[in-house]
Amino acid sequence: MTEDITAVTAGVVVIGDEILSGRTRDINVQQIAEFLRPLGVDLTEVRIVGDDQSAIVEAVRALAARCTYAFTTGGIGPTHDDITADAIAAAFGRSIDVRDDALEILQRWYAASDTPITKARLRMARIPDGAVLIDNPVTGAPGFQLENVFVLAGVPKIARGMLEDIAPRLTRGAVTHSVTVRLDGAREGDLADALGALQRQHPDVSIGSYPWFEDLGEKGVRRGVALVARGTDQAELGVLKQAFSRLRP
Amino acid sequence: MTEDITAVTAGVVVIGDEILSGRTRDINVQQIAEFLRPLGVDLTEVRIVGDDQSAIVEAVRALAARCTYAFTTGGIGPTHDDITADAIAAAFGRSIDVRDDALEILQRWYAASDTPITKARLRMARIPDGAVLIDNPVTGAPGFQLENVFVLAGVPKIARGMLEDIAPRLTRGAVTHSVTVRLDGAREGDLADALGALQRQHPDVSIGSYPWFEDLGEKGVRRGVALVARGTDQAELGVLKQAFSRLRP
Repeated sequence: MTEDITAVTAGVVVIGDEILSGRTRDINVQQIAEFLRPLGVDLTEVRIVGDDQSAIVEAVRALAARCTYAFTTGGIGPTHDDITADAIAAAFGRSIDVRDDALEILQRWYAASDTPITKARLRMARIPDGAVLIDNPVTGAPGFQLENVFVLAGVPKIARGMLEDIAPRLTRGAVTHSVTVRLDGAREGDLADALGALQRQHPDVSIGSYPWFEDLGEKGVRRGVALVARGTDQAELGVLKQAFSRLRP
Repeated sequence: MTEDITAVTAGVVVIGDEILSGRTRDINVQQIAEFLRPLGVDLTEVRIVGDDQSAIVEAVRALAARCTYAFTTGGIGPTHDDITADAIAAAFGRSIDVRDDALEILQRWYAASDTPITKARLRMARIPDGAVLIDNPVTGAPGFQLENVFVLAGVPKIARGMLEDIAPRLTRGAVTHSVTVRLDGAREGDLADALGALQRQHPDVSIGSYPWFEDLGEKGVRRGVALVARGTDQAELGVLKQAFSRLRP
């Protein structure tokens, strides 16, 4: 992979014991990657941490420092294990309290369903000093942006809604496109020399090779390799697609 | 979450541009977490990095230093983008070359299918100095263990097979069990005070609250909250399961 000094990059911090325990399978990483791709923002690192303030602070600081943007998912609800807002405030040395703009949103939202704003729900209006709110079209309680960090809900449907509000705030980069050629019956070891040569000839493209196996039961195992080229120059990708196809066994 | 000085912990480094691009959705994290749980090994952090040596080295060093064990998945095949073995050697300052024990395995494996061992396939016998091999029951090419780091394949079926070979090498910890109560129609904001109180009463148990929404189309949206308690004392978890059930709306 070549480094591009004008690249726009993103890191994601997935927050939640339920992901680490294996109980819940994360889908926000893929969702965020797919959202960012057409904007020309490349996801370069992901960290999954538990509901633990020091772990969140460390991960957010690291990715915010090294990426153009960092995103967090999870931990912004009303319960005792929702500690993301406080952790973000701590990561940036900001104060945090219930904020009027967030409270107004909650009041409007809950009034519509005659739901009382309990002390617990008030927790969702705690926003770090200096943060800009992110609209939550699903359940009202907002996310927020502090510097280059975007704090999203963990529920995928809500996270998706929040991304829509964020899109206009992002600097766009060169869009990375990809081409994929699936070679049924191929084996990586037979392709490796040709792929290595193609990679050297096209240093600005990232060429990946992904073997797959499919269990057909009594009929044995089908196998193959998916070849992927990723880059910003679509003509170059077209050339590579043809080159990949010529490797078909 | 309470810290336990006798806890046995694990970190996972998922290696691969295809995961970061959103093209492939990782399932190894969940697979490893589920494999480790009955062994009493808690997954405490995950990092997903691209096919980039410095990123791999940094992530492996960090997790190997802070966890009892670190696992990597991906990047140990025969192609140019398979750089994990070299990165692990670099992370620990070890030399790396084709090793006889690994080569013998490949020779035996490929002889059975009359497949030539190309220069590319030889790459899969590159093992860092001092590493112990990990058996690959699916495609032959071994993984390896260097100090407290276990290097696994990225293909989930192969990674799963390698875990079987690793199990006897791991120190076991207190097994974490969990109970889950699903409260249809509940809202987190109504449960938060009670959950906070339960968490204070049971500091050795990790109590989590996970809202869910289900789109029923014209019939609107169903919602609810899943309450999860995780801990090592099953009697205590039974008490919490009853307490959760009493929160049913």
